[in-house]
Amino acid sequence: MLLGVNPPNFIVPPVEGIAGGGTGYGWTDGGVECSNFGRGVIDPTQIPSADLLQVWCMPSTANVGEQDMPRPFDHVSLLAARNEKESVQIAMRPKLSWASSGMAGTVQIQCSDLCSAAGDRLLVGQSLTMRHVVPILGVPDALVPLSLPISQINLLPGETTSIWVSVDVPAGQPPGHYEGLILITALKADAESSAHTLAKADKYKLNRELKNCLELVEPVDGKPLEEVAERLKSATSSLKKILLLPVFHEFYEDNGSCDMMDEDALSNISIHLKINVTVWDFTLPLTPSLPAVFGVSETVIEDRFGVQHGSEGWYDALDCHFKWLLQYRISPYFCRWGDSMRILAYTCPWPADHPRSEEYYSDPRLAAYAVPYAPILSCSSEARESLRKEVEILKSKHHWPKAYFYLWDEIQCSDLCSAAGDRLLVGQSLTMRHVVPILGVPDALPLNLEQYELIRSMSCDIRSYAPDARVLTTYYCGPSDAQLGSNTFEAFVKVPKYLRPHTQIFCTSEWVFGNREDLATDIIAELQPENGEEWWTYVCMGPSDPQPNWHLGMRGTQHRAVMWRVWKEGGTGFLYWGANCYEKSLAASAEVKFRRGLPPGDGVLFYPGEVFSSSHEPIASIRLERILSGMQDIEYLKLYSSRFGRDKGLALLEKTGVYLNPERYTLEHSPIDIMRAEIYRTCGA
Amino acid sequence: MLLGVNPPNFIVPPVEGIAGGGTGYGWTDGGVECSNFGRGVIDPTQIPSADLLQVWCMPSTANVGEQDMPRPFDHVSLLAARNEKESVQIAMRPKLSWASSGMAGTVQIQCSDLCSAAGDRLLVGQSLTMRHVVPILGVPDALVPLSLPISQINLLPGETTSIWVSVDVPAGQPPGHYEGLILITALKADAESSAHTLAKADKYKLNRELKNCLELVEPVDGKPLEEVAERLKSATSSLKKILLLPVFHEFYEDNGSCDMMDEDALSNISIHLKINVTVWDFTLPLTPSLPAVFGVSETVIEDRFGVQHGSEGWYDALDCHFKWLLQYRISPYFCRWGDSMRILAYTCPWPADHPRSEEYYSDPRLAAYAVPYAPILSCSSEARESLRKEVEILKSKHHWPKAYFYLWDEIQCSDLCSAAGDRLLVGQSLTMRHVVPILGVPDALPLNLEQYELIRSMSCDIRSYAPDARVLTTYYCGPSDAQLGSNTFEAFVKVPKYLRPHTQIFCTSEWVFGNREDLATDIIAELQPENGEEWWTYVCMGPSDPQPNWHLGMRGTQHRAVMWRVWKEGGTGFLYWGANCYEKSLAASAEVKFRRGLPPGDGVLFYPGEVFSSSHEPIASIRLERILSGMQDIEYLKLYSSRFGRDKGLALLEKTGVYLNPERYTLEHSPIDIMRAEIYRTCGA
Repeated sequence: MLLGVNPPNFIVPPVEGIAGGGTGYGWTDGGVECSNFGRGVIDPTQIPSADLLQVWCMPSTANVGEQDMPRPFDHVSLLAARNEKESVQIAMRPKLSWASSGMAGTVQIQCSDLCSAAGDRLLVGQSLTMRHVVPILGVPDALVPLSLPISQINLLPGETTSIWVSVDVPAGQPPGHYEGLILITALKADAESSAHTLAKADKYKLNRELKNCLELVEPVDGKPLEEVAERLKSATSSLKKILLLPVFHEFYEDNGSCDMMDEDALSNISIHLKINVTVWDFTLPLTPSLPAVFGVSETVIEDRFGVQHGSEGWYDALDCHFKWLLQYRISPYFCRWGDSMRILAYTCPWPADHPRSEEYYSDPRLAAYAVPYAPILSCSSEARESLRKEVEILKSKHHWPKAYFYLWDEIQCSDLCSAAGDRLLVGQSLTMRHVVPILGVPDALPLNLEQYELIRSMSCDIRSYAPDARVLTTYYCGPSDAQLGSNTFEAFVKVPKYLRPHTQIFCTSEWVFGNREDLATDIIAELQPENGEEWWTYVCMGPSDPQPNWHLGMRGTQHRAVMWRVWKEGGTGFLYWGANCYEKSLAASAEVKFRRGLPPGDGVLFYPGEVFSSSHEPIASIRLERILSGMQDIEYLKLYSSRFGRDKGLALLEKTGVYLNPERYTLEHSPIDIMRAEIYRTCGA
Repeated sequence: MLLGVNPPNFIVPPVEGIAGGGTGYGWTDGGVECSNFGRGVIDPTQIPSADLLQVWCMPSTANVGEQDMPRPFDHVSLLAARNEKESVQIAMRPKLSWASSGMAGTVQIQCSDLCSAAGDRLLVGQSLTMRHVVPILGVPDALVPLSLPISQINLLPGETTSIWVSVDVPAGQPPGHYEGLILITALKADAESSAHTLAKADKYKLNRELKNCLELVEPVDGKPLEEVAERLKSATSSLKKILLLPVFHEFYEDNGSCDMMDEDALSNISIHLKINVTVWDFTLPLTPSLPAVFGVSETVIEDRFGVQHGSEGWYDALDCHFKWLLQYRISPYFCRWGDSMRILAYTCPWPADHPRSEEYYSDPRLAAYAVPYAPILSCSSEARESLRKEVEILKSKHHWPKAYFYLWDEIQCSDLCSAAGDRLLVGQSLTMRHVVPILGVPDALPLNLEQYELIRSMSCDIRSYAPDARVLTTYYCGPSDAQLGSNTFEAFVKVPKYLRPHTQIFCTSEWVFGNREDLATDIIAELQPENGEEWWTYVCMGPSDPQPNWHLGMRGTQHRAVMWRVWKEGGTGFLYWGANCYEKSLAASAEVKFRRGLPPGDGVLFYPGEVFSSSHEPIASIRLERILSGMQDIEYLKLYSSRFGRDKGLALLEKTGVYLNPERYTLEHSPIDIMRAEIYRTCGA
C-alpha cells in the first residue's frame, strides 16, 4: 500500500472495507457493463463495439427520445405484405466517449440486402432504407435519409439516437422469409478529428506543392540531361517534403502500410443485428381502398422554394410533391384559398387536355382527385368555359369515379366566437381551445342562405356538365340560421338534408363526436348511398389528446389510431387540410416553424429536404410514416373482413386491444403485431 | 400569367387577392427577415451571416434551452472586480440551413483580446474564454471548452445553441474600460462535407501514390540517362493522375488559385458583437471570506480513471482536482466513507511532513482544509501516531486556523424512516421526498450514546494534541434519545449543548429551516463564538424547489441564491457533500449518470473532461459557475457591509429584489446587475 513517495509512518487510507456512505455507490443497478478502460485513449478498432455503445430495437410506434434508456438487445422480425412498407427503429446510446470533439463518437451502420433461401432479394437502398430520426421541438419527428449501404452517424454523450429502418416490399416480391444483417461499428474519429482530416487550407497547400513538383518534372523533352537530373533531384526532395506534411503523419511509422480497418476485423468487433422479414402472399391494393385526400399548399411551395406561379420550376415543385406523397397511400390535392371562404383545390396542375394530366389522374396509386373549379378565382366566361371543358374531358375517363370537387373551406368567425361549441357539441366537454377561431382549418358548413346559394350555384354548374360529379363539403356543425333539428347534434346530423343534392361527400370533423363514436351511425343513417352519398371525416386542431390525431408529441399509436378510428366508424374517405403548412418563409432551407395558434405538427407532415441536406426531396415525419401504417392497417382489416365479415373485423380490433374507441386504444405496439399476425395466420396462404 | 406550356384556355390560378384561409399565413409575426434565397445553394461567404443565423446575448443566470426563441441582438457590457470572473452567454439559432449533412451549418467564433484605452489587455485564451453549453438530461449544464481565439461549432436546424463567455480578471489587472470584439461568421461546409475533406482512405491512397512517385524519381544517381528520362515521364504522369484525384476537384477550374475566405471579406459578412468590460478598483480577496468546503470522492476518481489508490497516477488525479476546484473559490476535501457512519476527509493527500503538503495547505485560495483523522480507518497505534504527528506539524503553521476535522457523516435510517421530519421540522410541510432515506448525504448527528462516546473520544484525541483544533459535525436534527428541548426544532437548536466541546463547527442543513429563515438567529444565539464555535450550513437533496439549491433544472438565480441565503442568514461557512459523485463507472469517458434516488445534479458539479473531449481537465457545470458567482456576490456584499454596516447590506439585497427569503428571490438577472452596480457606485474609487 505504501509507495516510495510516502514517508514510512504515513498511512495511505486503505481501499478495503469501504461501503455505503455518501460517496459510495449505493444505487448501482446491474453493475457496470464495460471493462476498465481507465484514462487511456480508447481505440474503437480494438474493442468490441458492444462495449462502446448500446443498441436496441424499438417499434415504429415508439417515440425514441434523447433521454431514453437502453433496453436489451434483440434482433428484428417483421411481417409485411407485398406492396407494404414496414418500419422499425434501431436506438443507440454511447456507453462512453471514444471521440474527442464534444461528441461521444462516430458509428458506422452497414446494411446488407435481405435474402431469401430461394435467392430472392430485398435490395438495400431500394427496398431497405435507413433514416436518421431528428427531433423537432425536442420530439423525434423528421426522418433524414442516410446513405446506403454504409452510413455514419455521430452519437453525443448521454444521448440516445434512433435510426428508422424501413422495408418497402415491391408488389412483385416473391413471398418468403428474408434475412439480412445490419452491422453497427464504432469508428475511430477519423472524419471529425482535425489531426486526421485534410482541411481546405491543407489541401490547397498540398495541391500547390504537387503542381510545383509537376512543373519540375514535366517539360523534360529536349532539356539537357544534367538539367533533367537536377530537376529529378528537386522533385525528389519536393516529394519527400510533401510526404512529411502533418497530414500524412499517421503513415510515418508503419512506413505507409495501411492501418485502415480491415473488413473482417471490422465485422468481428461490430454489433450484428439480424433483420428478418416475412413477406406473405397478400398484396396491398395499389389503389388505397379508402381515399385519403391531403392538402398541399401552393403558397408555401411558391414562397419557400422561390418558384413563380405557373413557371416551369413551379410545375416541377408540384410534381415532386405529388409523386412523393403518392408513396404514402395519400391522394394529394394542391390548394389555395380564395376570398376567405372559397378554396381552389386541384390534384393536377395541368388542364385535362394537357398530355401530362393523364399521368396524374390515371396513376393507380391515386384514390381520389380534386378537379379545379376554375371560376372560384375568376367568374369570367373563360373560367367557366375552362371548367366545362375540364369536366367534359374527365367524365369520359375511366378514372372519373375518383373525381371530386372541393369548393368550401370556411369558418363563420362570429359563429365560432359565440361559443358555437356549446350549441353544437354533444358528448364532449368544451375547452377554450375549441372556441379559439381556427382560421385556416377546413371545418365549416356554409351557414347562411347567401352562402347556400353560392354553393348551390357552383354545384349546379358542375352537375350540369356531369350529373354524377361529386362535391365534397367539410363541416363540423349544423347551420345556425335554419331549424333542422331539436338539438345541436341533431342539426349537425341533418346537414345532408340541407345540402342535398349539392353535396355528395359529407366530410365531418372527428372532433364533433368526442368519445361518442356511436353517433357515427346516426350520420351514416342520414345518407343516401344509393345516390352516391358518402361520409368522410377529417382531423385538424381537434380532436386533441387523448384522442387520435397527428400532432407532434402524441404517442405513436395515437398517430396510427386515426385510421383505425376511420375504419371502425365506417367512413369511406378521409381529408386532411395540409401536409406542408409551415409558417411563411422565403428560403427553402429556412427553419421550419409551425403556425402560431395551431398545435405543433398540425398541418405539417413533412419537411423541406433543404433544411436537413442539400437534397430537394421532402423529409417525411415519423407521423407521416404512421399515417401510412394506419392506411395499411385498413387494407389488412378489409382483407380480414372480406373473409369473415365486418363484425369479425371489428371484433379482432377489439379482441387484440388495438382499438376500442377514440379514448381506448393500445398504447403499446405489441397488440398491433398480434392483430397483423392473426390476419396473416387466418388469411395467409 | 400564362406560360407557353399552358394551352391557351387553361387558367393558371392567379396569385392575387389571396389572403386568410387555411394555408394562408394568418399568423406571421413581424414578417420574414431573410431575403428570398429560393432553392439555390446558399453560399455563406456571399451573404451576411446575420441573414443566416440569429445571435443574441443572455445573462449567466439564464438556462438557454434548445427551443429558446431568439431575442433582439445587443452588445455585452460587464462589470467585474479584479480577481473576479464574470460570464455571459451568446445564444445562436440558424434561420436556415446552409450546410448539407443534417445540420444547419457551421459557425466560426473569433475573439479578440479586450483592450483598454491605456493599452492594457485582457488576453483571449487566458482572461477571456469560451465554452460550448452542452445539455445534460436535456438541461444546459456542461461547459465544454472551445479553442481560442478561433473556434467552430455546428448549429442544428431549429435548435438554439449557447456559448458561455467568461472574463476572468487577474488580480493585478489595471482598472478601466476594456473593449473587445467577437466575430461570428457562418462558414461554408468545408470541414464536414465529404466532398471537401480527405477521409483516411483518400489520404492513404494519396500517400501511396506519392510514395510510388518518389520511388520513380529517387534513386537516379548512376542510372542511365534514358532511364532517368523514362522515370521522369512516369513521375509526370503519376503526378498528373494524383492532381486529378477527386480530392482536388475544387482546384480544377480556377487553376489552383485559392478561393479560401479572405480575412477582410470574412469580417465584412460577420456578425460583430462588442464586449465591454468595466474592471473596477476592488480586488476580491484571494482567500474567500466565507470558507466553502466541497467533497470530492476518492472512490469515484479511482474507479473512473483507473488509478490505484496511492499510486503516482492517483496523486496526480487528486492534484488535478484540487487545483481545478480552487479556481471556483472552493476549498476541496477528498473523502471516503468508513463503516457506514465515519468519514475520512482530507484536503491534502500528502502527510504534513511531506514537501508537497505545504503547497496544498498554504495555498492562499484555500479558505479551510480538512485534516485526515487517520485512526478512522484503522485504530492501530501507527494510525494514532500518524494523527499526532500531523497535528503537531500543522498546529505550528500560520495556516492552522484554516484546519478542521470532519469525522461524521451518518444517518440513523430507523430514525429517518420513522418520519423524523415530523418530529424535527418547524415551519415546513413534509413531503414524501423528505423522509426517503437519504443515504450518502452528510446530514445527521450521531444520535445515541455509543456514537456520542465515539465522537467524544475522537475529538478528545485531537484536542489533546491541539486544544484549538476545530471539529466539524453535520446534522439536520436533534438527538432522538436525549431530552434537550420541548419540541423538535428546540431539540435541533440545542445540539451544541450536547456536542460541546467536541464540536466547534456546527454544520446544519438549510432544509431544516424551510422558509423560516428567522430560526437562524436561534441557532446563532445558542453558540459561543468566544470559544470558537461557528455555524455553517449545507444543501444536498434538500431543500428542493422553490428554495435555492444546485439541482439540474432549477433556475439560474436559484443556483446563485444558495450563497445569498448563506450570507443573509449569517453562517460563517458552507459544506457541500460531493462535486464528482457520479454513478460508478470504470472508464474515464463513460457516460455520466446521476445516482439513483438523488435529484439530478445533486453531488455532481463537474464532469470528467474525457466524456466530451480528449482532455483530462474537468468540465465545469453551469451550476458550478453560478456557485462561483454566488461566492463573489458574498465578497461584494461584505465590501458594502464593511463600509455601511451589515444592515445596509441586507437592505440592499432586499431593496434591489435580489434576495428576500428562501422562497422570494429574483427570477430575473437584472436585479443582480443593479445590486452590483450600486456596490460599484458606492464603494468604487
